[in-house]
Amino acid sequence: MSFPVPARPYDFSLDPASVALVVIDMQRDFIERGGFGDTLGNDVSRLTAIVPTVAALIALFRRQRLPVVHTREAHKPDLSDCPPAKRLRGRPGLRIGDEGAMGRILIAGEPGNQIVADLAPVAGEIVIDKPGKGMFWATGLHETLTAKGVTQLVFAGVTTEVCVQTSMREANDRGYECLLIEDATESYFPEFKAGAIEMIVAQGGIVGWATPLSMLEAAFEAAMAHG
Amino acid sequence: MSFPVPARPYDFSLDPASVALVVIDMQRDFIERGGFGDTLGNDVSRLTAIVPTVAALIALFRRQRLPVVHTREAHKPDLSDCPPAKRLRGRPGLRIGDEGAMGRILIAGEPGNQIVADLAPVAGEIVIDKPGKGMFWATGLHETLTAKGVTQLVFAGVTTEVCVQTSMREANDRGYECLLIEDATESYFPEFKAGAIEMIVAQGGIVGWATPLSMLEAAFEAAMAHG
Repeated sequence: MSFPVPARPYDFSLDPASVALVVIDMQRDFIERGGFGDTLGNDVSRLTAIVPTVAALIALFRRQRLPVVHTREAHKPDLSDCPPAKRLRGRPGLRIGDEGAMGRILIAGEPGNQIVADLAPVAGEIVIDKPGKGMFWATGLHETLTAKGVTQLVFAGVTTEVCVQTSMREANDRGYECLLIEDATESYFPEFKAGAIEMIVAQGGIVGWATPLSMLEAAFEAAMAHG
Repeated sequence: MSFPVPARPYDFSLDPASVALVVIDMQRDFIERGGFGDTLGNDVSRLTAIVPTVAALIALFRRQRLPVVHTREAHKPDLSDCPPAKRLRGRPGLRIGDEGAMGRILIAGEPGNQIVADLAPVAGEIVIDKPGKGMFWATGLHETLTAKGVTQLVFAGVTTEVCVQTSMREANDRGYECLLIEDATESYFPEFKAGAIEMIVAQGGIVGWATPLSMLEAAFEAAMAHG
């Protein structure tokens, strides 16, 4: 049974039989002090600050026994899935595959590439290593979600205007209804977070919907009370 | 031989042997008075205003005998490629497939779905009908470009933060180097155009590069003079 979640630009009709949570790139190299993002000069404290909210969102989906997907931006150790154009855009000495403070930068299996401990995936959850900013390119995720009957995606993670926005736009084109949890996503640049959210909900929700976690939690509670 | 094009965040190294121009969705329904975009209450004069600049950009690529790709947001008449989530998001009476002032809205072959006369494709150019905002989803374009040896894309068209940004993000994930011509793209919302461009060039060109047409024209001229 679907139930309404107050959201912008209008109520999101959430169907528990069709929904999954997607947590984008909450990996140590982007979130923790001493990681890749920090080394590049970004203020990672903005991102660290959302970890408890993302943890509460994941806990909500686990309580409801609903699917959870975690993504990591990760390349193969031999870089065979890293386009030269991507690697060369990096700062010399801090390119993908170079040795960083938490192991090789953006390489699968390295310490910095792991999801932060407080948000670690549990057995049965889907973990996707993606070579792009978007979660569908070269991952097979669309086929996985389709096979599970998932048609709605709730989004959290980092960064809002890069990997989250790109993944939402891909998902929207593929016919998923997308709801972004505004306080469970963050950017190194607050104006980009705000701008990306406005672009998503504009024109009648041209990319999707947005709401804070409290609204989603209250809507689930109300649905269970009346269900 | 590659040559530099002054751009943000730094010079774009353009290789005429590997580049193509992509003109996104310059279709009558988005650009002309009386079309779908206008009916929705958007100020289409902002978009109409860039037509001469886009025409000059196309003329430049034609003079250089370089590939030109045109896209249209277009669905099949039976709507089999239109996700229900996309159609239902439209305003009742103005949904995809409904009868509009220029024929059925966003349906291939209808008058409103044609590219504006001043930018009409010529023989030998690639024309892509895309069901999404991004130009790669369900179009086969990546395979077409790869077969032609294209690895760099110069972008123009509308709207900046929706179909142009989405297509650039898809292209970037696929390893293309992307250069947006700032005065050959436009949005119904000037703050979204500006914000999308900033997001593209941020973090060392995380999505790509941006420059005005005059810079690209001057760079081509200089390259030919010295070539």
